[in-house]
Amino acid sequence: MQYFTDTDMGLDLGQVNLSMESAFADHGKGLVQMPPKVYITLPEGDFRTMPAYLPSLSIAGVKVVNVHPKNPRSGLPTVMALTIILDLVTGQPLAVINATRLTDMRTGAAGAVAAKYLSPKKEVVLGVIGTGRQAEAQVAAISKELKIRQVRIWGRDPQHVRKFADRFMEFPCLALPIEKTCDCDVLVTTTPSTSPIIRSEWIHEGTHINAIGADAPGKEELDPALLRRGQVFVDDPFQAIHSGEINVPIRTGLYRADEIAGTLGEVVIGKKRRSGEDAITIFDSTGLAIQDLAIAKIAMQHGRKIELPFP
Amino acid sequence: MQYFTDTDMGLDLGQVNLSMESAFADHGKGLVQMPPKVYITLPEGDFRTMPAYLPSLSIAGVKVVNVHPKNPRSGLPTVMALTIILDLVTGQPLAVINATRLTDMRTGAAGAVAAKYLSPKKEVVLGVIGTGRQAEAQVAAISKELKIRQVRIWGRDPQHVRKFADRFMEFPCLALPIEKTCDCDVLVTTTPSTSPIIRSEWIHEGTHINAIGADAPGKEELDPALLRRGQVFVDDPFQAIHSGEINVPIRTGLYRADEIAGTLGEVVIGKKRRSGEDAITIFDSTGLAIQDLAIAKIAMQHGRKIELPFP
Repeated sequence: MQYFTDTDMGLDLGQVNLSMESAFADHGKGLVQMPPKVYITLPEGDFRTMPAYLPSLSIAGVKVVNVHPKNPRSGLPTVMALTIILDLVTGQPLAVINATRLTDMRTGAAGAVAAKYLSPKKEVVLGVIGTGRQAEAQVAAISKELKIRQVRIWGRDPQHVRKFADRFMEFPCLALPIEKTCDCDVLVTTTPSTSPIIRSEWIHEGTHINAIGADAPGKEELDPALLRRGQVFVDDPFQAIHSGEINVPIRTGLYRADEIAGTLGEVVIGKKRRSGEDAITIFDSTGLAIQDLAIAKIAMQHGRKIELPFP
Repeated sequence: MQYFTDTDMGLDLGQVNLSMESAFADHGKGLVQMPPKVYITLPEGDFRTMPAYLPSLSIAGVKVVNVHPKNPRSGLPTVMALTIILDLVTGQPLAVINATRLTDMRTGAAGAVAAKYLSPKKEVVLGVIGTGRQAEAQVAAISKELKIRQVRIWGRDPQHVRKFADRFMEFPCLALPIEKTCDCDVLVTTTPSTSPIIRSEWIHEGTHINAIGADAPGKEELDPALLRRGQVFVDDPFQAIHSGEINVPIRTGLYRADEIAGTLGEVVIGKKRRSGEDAITIFDSTGLAIQDLAIAKIAMQHGRKIELPFP
């Protein structure tokens, strides 16, 4: 058995995007085993267990990931993760992977796949709401699929906004008020908000939105009116209804599950698509266990590893 | 983060039994978080993901365990397991534990707790059906709770039976035909059978049975008539109905879920009990994630460990 310590080193983001696209395609074709993630509530946060089997990549395993919002106060990441990979033939554990950075990257890659298929423009002004690790991951991954003409950034903390802009010197970056940031071609929302912060009237026709922040019951970032104005594509309907951007509006009756336009997997295989140039498309990302397997497959070819005795 | 390589070394079985009893008591009182285990089917077997949080022992985590019946042909155990333990306050992974042997031991310990509370006799003739690792674990654990006057063993392979008897020189061991083995005070069934091998007429009144073998849909060891003659206590109703001894009879209509007499947790806290000296009691064991946490807590105080970098 091997322990992979820092698996983000040397990963090619384009290859990660491609692998994610293939995982979503398999999901769209119904070729994966992936029960809904299971939540356990801890005193200061929660952890989620995400088992799956992705036959086309010959990989099976489980990611265990926590969400503890108070962690940064003590210098720890909010989200940390381990992935266990099992041998397909014997079930023996082959690898334990530090998947903390990989979790950011695979979520970024899903956003890139969504933007590639759902943005009507291939040269874009990219709006970014929030300045955390996931905001960075989205910009980095999307830049491999679309030509970014400008990045518009909004965050609560001007210092964080400045740091974020410094990270992406290769693009013209503008720190703007939230409504000006929303005036873009592809918008990415990455906040932990529990009430809508993006108003429908700020979003013009033809925009594609990656709604990333809402990943647990009670979280939401978008005005429910915007959901109904647009076409909502989810990664997985069960998870999206339970804990995605649509979870609160569904519970309060402002959105109905049968209004979901399709899954990203269905979009990738061409079964579903944006209805026209002027449509507003929204990708509601909750994070799939098959994404973790797809990136684990690549990560196991890189990074440092430590041999461990097993069984 | 620490990796524990061989955590069964130096464990006190009496202490393990006690810890298991406390975990079942918490389960009986509804003090644990433990969603049903999740199954993923692989080409030659399956793996199960078992997350839980056991507040009274201040421990939370996930066990990942496979079942691959063809493994022994290539020298690997059928069942192998890893447990991940998370910090309660931050969610950070604290330990990865080789839980292969611990899985045997905690199942043995559950059998010991069931026998302690449900066998009307404290000095017993112990019948054992099957001669594998779990049969050994049951005898070892039960011997800490009851005085064993004699062990009666039945297995398909006489060589395995002989080896099994050699392992327990401290008790008079008799290799007997299956019906004579069933003539005992406490019977333990540990086979991977998918059709009943224990007939109801072989079991006399006052017997307690640990039905251990059936742990997946389609598996069963006991004549359904025996289930209706006796009182069936389960570790967890949902899991037992899905994959325990009662799963096949429930599906075929030979047993009803509302006939379940209670859970082992309810027995431990005194809420449920055997109906009288002459009753036949059956403990239907499927294995609970809280058992894995309870034994992990002890195991982390023993065994060799390797320090691993994280995050």
